[in-house]
Amino acid sequence: MMRCYHICKLPGRVMGIRLLRFSSIIILVLLLVAGALTTLLPNIKDDKMPTSRREAKPQSQSALDSFTLIMQTYNRTDLLLRLLNHYQAVPHLHKVIVVWNNIGEKVPEDLWNALGPHPVPVIFKIQTVNRMRNRLQTFPELETKAVLMVDDDMLISAHDLVFAFSVWQQFPDQIVGFVPRKHVPTASGVYSYGGFELQIPGFGNGDQYSMVLIGASFFNRKYLEHFQRQPATVHALIDETQNCDDIAMNFMVSKHIGKTSGVFVKPVEMGNLEKETSSGYSGMWHRADHFLQRSYCINKLVKIYDSMPLKYSNIMISQFGFPYYANHKSKM
Amino acid sequence: MMRCYHICKLPGRVMGIRLLRFSSIIILVLLLVAGALTTLLPNIKDDKMPTSRREAKPQSQSALDSFTLIMQTYNRTDLLLRLLNHYQAVPHLHKVIVVWNNIGEKVPEDLWNALGPHPVPVIFKIQTVNRMRNRLQTFPELETKAVLMVDDDMLISAHDLVFAFSVWQQFPDQIVGFVPRKHVPTASGVYSYGGFELQIPGFGNGDQYSMVLIGASFFNRKYLEHFQRQPATVHALIDETQNCDDIAMNFMVSKHIGKTSGVFVKPVEMGNLEKETSSGYSGMWHRADHFLQRSYCINKLVKIYDSMPLKYSNIMISQFGFPYYANHKSKM
Repeated sequence: MMRCYHICKLPGRVMGIRLLRFSSIIILVLLLVAGALTTLLPNIKDDKMPTSRREAKPQSQSALDSFTLIMQTYNRTDLLLRLLNHYQAVPHLHKVIVVWNNIGEKVPEDLWNALGPHPVPVIFKIQTVNRMRNRLQTFPELETKAVLMVDDDMLISAHDLVFAFSVWQQFPDQIVGFVPRKHVPTASGVYSYGGFELQIPGFGNGDQYSMVLIGASFFNRKYLEHFQRQPATVHALIDETQNCDDIAMNFMVSKHIGKTSGVFVKPVEMGNLEKETSSGYSGMWHRADHFLQRSYCINKLVKIYDSMPLKYSNIMISQFGFPYYANHKSKM
Repeated sequence: MMRCYHICKLPGRVMGIRLLRFSSIIILVLLLVAGALTTLLPNIKDDKMPTSRREAKPQSQSALDSFTLIMQTYNRTDLLLRLLNHYQAVPHLHKVIVVWNNIGEKVPEDLWNALGPHPVPVIFKIQTVNRMRNRLQTFPELETKAVLMVDDDMLISAHDLVFAFSVWQQFPDQIVGFVPRKHVPTASGVYSYGGFELQIPGFGNGDQYSMVLIGASFFNRKYLEHFQRQPATVHALIDETQNCDDIAMNFMVSKHIGKTSGVFVKPVEMGNLEKETSSGYSGMWHRADHFLQRSYCINKLVKIYDSMPLKYSNIMISQFGFPYYANHKSKM
């Protein structure tokens, strides 16, 4: 009785202040709870859209589920930038490493940053000498198991890349790519380099390939390390010709795994943009001796290896049900 | 001096006989040498014709380089005999095992022998009960690692078979074949069976398959043994439906290897001859409940396995450069 009377007799101001404080605390607590609830809302939305869960979340891509694009470039910066706008958006891409063979020329980093933000980091690796094999270095920025190597004039559709990456994951010790070539033995024992226009004597039905060119392919990053450990004669051959790094890689992989070096994935939408450069620079393959060099390289590598390690394959992989959903039916 | 005079004075006849003997011996020796040389000749010819070396020599086919055709037959003996005339000539075929489900009916062995000789042995296995799973027994006559299993109304070209066999040799633990199918999950959790006309929710580009039907496929003989060891409930399900032995095999293989059970090879020339039988008997798939049974079997097998072991794949394999030598090019 006395306590109640005592309380009731407190000055009104003090009572008011305590009530105010109490109310403030309640309101604050309610606001905090509301704030916590709003952070929960987007998650519930994601559950309703299963496709978004399947989309690549770059920040959580592991080294096994993503790949690094390594693109070497020389005198075709217009094509490079156009291609970067395309490749930067390909699913499962972790990072881009541009191997800058324009010696003494500034990398377009300021331009790149000014036109950000970008989906993935792009690293420009400035080179000191313009070497074809610069792109086969073991870049410390390379974090993924898979490398996607693309020439700076090749536009490969994201559909093709996503599928080929899934194929590489099933054949991780081989070069999985879009451009098949072969070596051809001749009666004299001298080898020659070519594509489907050449025939291998006595091989029965159809064609074979024994190399998959690395300039449009996925391969395991360890092969960059292996390549660095190749004999100096191999490196010298590539430097002498400014060519054949891909032939050398196929020799190396085939020797290493004891079977065909590559797996050919038939591209649905892949094209060469070299005619669209304003630099006037045509690709290396326009040099008069380019193809003769490649046959020359095969025979030199056979000497270095003291054997012909390349093996033939006639496996051609396509994507079931894409682009046309009944593409598995005969006569299609 | 005396010796020489003695010899010179020998009667002419004796000299003649000795000369005759000597000449005969020389001639005989020359003939033997010539005979030995002629046996050498075919070998040299083989060296000049590399294709003949690559041809299968049936008498020297090892268990790894050849396969056994297992063909089960019921009420379509006309088709069977026509197909045997085709399959008996396929390269790398070791033997044919015909699983005779025509209970009580005489096998056409006399006819077969009367129309010999034949390239390979054909064994008729007389069955006591007409069971779909009769073809999945472990036949003692089976000597090769690879089994080619074909339905008694399927005509698959030798080109397709030779290629698919070479593919199986690269994927020996999978069912390598020409007919892809899939299971489809639905919102209720109940599975359904189908082909490319069905879609798998939320799967992105293209189609997937999770089964390769065994009635037009290569697989490892060990899977016959595995199948015999399957739970009685699996055998009972197949007997109950007279169906689903192939679905059961895919469940079994997928569970065993922990990845997709089959590899789909796109056939170039494969056709069904069921309309051409004079027996009036249409295949099992014409039964009203055939397809519903297959969905039923999938759900039953999931119960038996207490899981869904089937895995999806979108790998479609074709032969590089066959039938058209530039078939790897885009838009073909």
